[in-house]
Amino acid sequence: MSLFEKHNETLLKAIDALHARTFYAAFAEHPAPAVYGETADTDGQTKFKSWLGNKFSELKQTGETSWAGQEESPYLQEPLKISYPIFSSKTLVDNAKSSFHVWRKVSAKDRAGILLESLERVKARFFEIAYATMHTTGQGYMMAFQASGPHAADRALEAIAAGYEELNRFPQTALWDKPMGKYNLKINKEWRAMPKGVSVVIGCSTFPTWNSVTGIYGSLITGNPVIVKPHPGAILPIAIFVAEIQKVLAENNLDPNICQLAVDTYDKMITKELAEHADVKLIDFTGNSAFGSYLEALPGKTVFTEKTGVNSVILDSTDDIDKTAANLAFSINLYSGQMCTAPQNFYIPEGGINTPAGNVSFDQFAEKLVANINGLIDNPKAGPFVLGAVQNKKTSERVVEAEKIPGKVWLKSRSFENPMFKNARVATPVIVEVDVTKQDIFSKELFGPIALLIKTKDTDQSIHLAQAMAQQHGAISCGAYTTDAEVKEKIADAMALAATPVSFNLTGGIYMNQNAAFSDFHVTGGNPSGNASFTNPEYVTKRFTWVGHREPVA
Amino acid sequence: MSLFEKHNETLLKAIDALHARTFYAAFAEHPAPAVYGETADTDGQTKFKSWLGNKFSELKQTGETSWAGQEESPYLQEPLKISYPIFSSKTLVDNAKSSFHVWRKVSAKDRAGILLESLERVKARFFEIAYATMHTTGQGYMMAFQASGPHAADRALEAIAAGYEELNRFPQTALWDKPMGKYNLKINKEWRAMPKGVSVVIGCSTFPTWNSVTGIYGSLITGNPVIVKPHPGAILPIAIFVAEIQKVLAENNLDPNICQLAVDTYDKMITKELAEHADVKLIDFTGNSAFGSYLEALPGKTVFTEKTGVNSVILDSTDDIDKTAANLAFSINLYSGQMCTAPQNFYIPEGGINTPAGNVSFDQFAEKLVANINGLIDNPKAGPFVLGAVQNKKTSERVVEAEKIPGKVWLKSRSFENPMFKNARVATPVIVEVDVTKQDIFSKELFGPIALLIKTKDTDQSIHLAQAMAQQHGAISCGAYTTDAEVKEKIADAMALAATPVSFNLTGGIYMNQNAAFSDFHVTGGNPSGNASFTNPEYVTKRFTWVGHREPVA
Repeated sequence: MSLFEKHNETLLKAIDALHARTFYAAFAEHPAPAVYGETADTDGQTKFKSWLGNKFSELKQTGETSWAGQEESPYLQEPLKISYPIFSSKTLVDNAKSSFHVWRKVSAKDRAGILLESLERVKARFFEIAYATMHTTGQGYMMAFQASGPHAADRALEAIAAGYEELNRFPQTALWDKPMGKYNLKINKEWRAMPKGVSVVIGCSTFPTWNSVTGIYGSLITGNPVIVKPHPGAILPIAIFVAEIQKVLAENNLDPNICQLAVDTYDKMITKELAEHADVKLIDFTGNSAFGSYLEALPGKTVFTEKTGVNSVILDSTDDIDKTAANLAFSINLYSGQMCTAPQNFYIPEGGINTPAGNVSFDQFAEKLVANINGLIDNPKAGPFVLGAVQNKKTSERVVEAEKIPGKVWLKSRSFENPMFKNARVATPVIVEVDVTKQDIFSKELFGPIALLIKTKDTDQSIHLAQAMAQQHGAISCGAYTTDAEVKEKIADAMALAATPVSFNLTGGIYMNQNAAFSDFHVTGGNPSGNASFTNPEYVTKRFTWVGHREPVA
Repeated sequence: MSLFEKHNETLLKAIDALHARTFYAAFAEHPAPAVYGETADTDGQTKFKSWLGNKFSELKQTGETSWAGQEESPYLQEPLKISYPIFSSKTLVDNAKSSFHVWRKVSAKDRAGILLESLERVKARFFEIAYATMHTTGQGYMMAFQASGPHAADRALEAIAAGYEELNRFPQTALWDKPMGKYNLKINKEWRAMPKGVSVVIGCSTFPTWNSVTGIYGSLITGNPVIVKPHPGAILPIAIFVAEIQKVLAENNLDPNICQLAVDTYDKMITKELAEHADVKLIDFTGNSAFGSYLEALPGKTVFTEKTGVNSVILDSTDDIDKTAANLAFSINLYSGQMCTAPQNFYIPEGGINTPAGNVSFDQFAEKLVANINGLIDNPKAGPFVLGAVQNKKTSERVVEAEKIPGKVWLKSRSFENPMFKNARVATPVIVEVDVTKQDIFSKELFGPIALLIKTKDTDQSIHLAQAMAQQHGAISCGAYTTDAEVKEKIADAMALAATPVSFNLTGGIYMNQNAAFSDFHVTGGNPSGNASFTNPEYVTKRFTWVGHREPVA
């Protein structure tokens, strides 16, 4: 049985799910022993620890110039001392170019089989990846398991499914048979989906697998060799994916350089060298807007970006103000605000928020939000795990700086003790009330646990501001609370025009930060927060070109 | 019955045809009285003549600042003296912006019905459009009828079908129902296909409808208002399309400014003003590479281009050298080489072309090609009609200049008499043998009836050159003659890598210049000849953004 046949059912289900957009997951998100095995967690932790201080020896790439690695654990504030092979960008591109002509000739079915097999292999390493993610990104255990493991694998599967579907969108051959009156003109036609060439996927420090696997698998399924350039601060989680892809390639007698890992160090970053290389045709990027915009402007490249945005919450009216405050408090605390989907600007009308129990004033809501944030932080069974640790020192500095923003500081950032990691770098949210006229303050992303409360004239002004921010500065998510159908449609339309998805009236166990594979398009591509979307058809069609040849029937 | 219901069958057939890619045409390409009516031709000519010296009064746009028009007939070498309303770019964009919020709220079904109805109305004016096309572009009667009438309408229908399919690619709503163990998390989700905004379609002087209707109908079906900016030399054919679209819009109580005509004059071109306007989000362009590349680099715009290329013919071996020469001679003569798909560089091995009747040398083939070109020109029943007239004086000058290219001039350009238009601007092909080392000469497009014969070491070198030209300078078409299956695959693969479709071994009534709707992707988007393709999925998906909203089930 070929790998394609082995995984055919998975692929077909995934393609169906892509169109149904109801709940679908191929990989169980809960780290349950019943699913993953009784010893999977312990084994994964042991395996993770075995890498510390050692060489990551699993790659099948050769020709390294040295070994290096600069990852640090935000929980331990110590270097991991894992080293990876270092290659020149010339070696990487040369390897990719020669592997291109191998990989592009592998059929779409065989490519799909190989890629799906690699995901199955990765599944056996979800716990190892979870610990690797915790100790590079600072994510809490549960998020690290879910985001880097099953949720990333689902996003990868989604990209494979989308790519496979597009590759089969048009027939490989057709007979063009045109009646000409006295005779028929018969032409044999054929169409080839030609991959664009060398693909570079540039990772970020906070979601090293979730944000990169879509580009990696999207490029690979469509026949392009991939150079994976992780953030120097978060390598191990994605290195494990690359190693498993390389193993399956080698087992199938294919060049492992079809998917290469390109580690660099802070003192000698190779991202620009790779991106600007004439032979690099595709670039995927997650990260800051300045670098993303530089990449988008490179001539002759197809570039997919997820940059930064200013996410808004519009508060108009709600059935339950306490559940609303609790839900938003969780969203702010989650991974200490280090998600691209975390809320930042809260627009609250000066007339307050209408509820069945009466009007809740701006100040009353602010107090509720602060109380809910504190309540979660101070719950020792939840707080430390929801907040996790802070990936980058600069984020901690930004949180401290935020207290100097002109306006009332409703909540100062403080410390808390993580029971498992005494030395963790932590930061709780800072909440500042900012005057609505001070758009220079709230029109930029303040990455980290920083929330701004903005008193507006009314909900119309809230909507106008949320829309303008998204259109001018980008937005990846938006939360809105309203019990009024007309207001709801006004928000839905305004934010849709700003290409920003809205989560309405979320309470309970679902948060505006979350985007599910096979259902939520992550980033829309329609505002400055990014030009691509996980996983719409364009995300894969832009990676190859339809070329048709023809010849008259003999 | 709604317009959608009226045209539903046409739409469904077109969507099927888009995927089958076998022969399909909704509009009969032959100007037969049996199809179009006994008096259709005469009536169309009369109607065309009625515009001469008059105002084009059919548009429903208001607020013009003046009336102007500078079209000239290449057949008469006289101004047509038709004038059109002139609008400031501010008026055009303001009108488009306000009509946007009307049009985007019209359902995809109703948009499709309106657009399909407009094509049916245009069908009744195919002959008028044909004469308008002859006397602006210089095309022969048959090409003018087909390219601007039925073939353009088929391309428009193709864009409507592709857009309609993509708008329905994902459900409008879905229930996301996630098992959480003790309960199910139920979220109502909805997706909106949000049009990007004001669209500007910039026309060219040689194919004023065929090259513009795809962008016009592609933008309209996806909900964007369109400003149609024709080339100042070829307005009337597309003005008729716009007028019919406006009429159907008005009949359906919609703002006719949803599709505006934006005529300008050579002394005051408004193309850059429109393209650079902050509110213009989509740009379609057919024309020269310099302007196309300028448009592609404009930040914040989605740009679709068809620019220029260097089209090659690779001659290796053939079953019938005379039919080969005849076919290529026709391709060179057709519309005096003023098609973007016309062949320019002919690569012939120094060892000659193998045929069943023996080897045909470079010189023997050159002689045959010249003889066939002359034979066609000198056939009074065919020549003048195949060659047509020359749209632009600069093309005539370029043909004269081409005789000074260093190398043997195999055929000089000369004149001939068009029996119907004594004063027509005509130019027959010039054929020059260029040394293979002189790439600076044959690596640029020499627009017009100019063919270069290049003696290569062997077919491998021919392939290498054809591929390199396409990759570096772009190519829209390629012709190849070989009887060897291995050579054929080598050519097919090499040119596919250069994103150039190859027509193999064409003889008889089909030419490499021709691209059929619903089957041949016109331009691939994968080389410098353009970044878009009629009509692949990207051509329509890039005109709108998927935005999803969600709310927990109450």
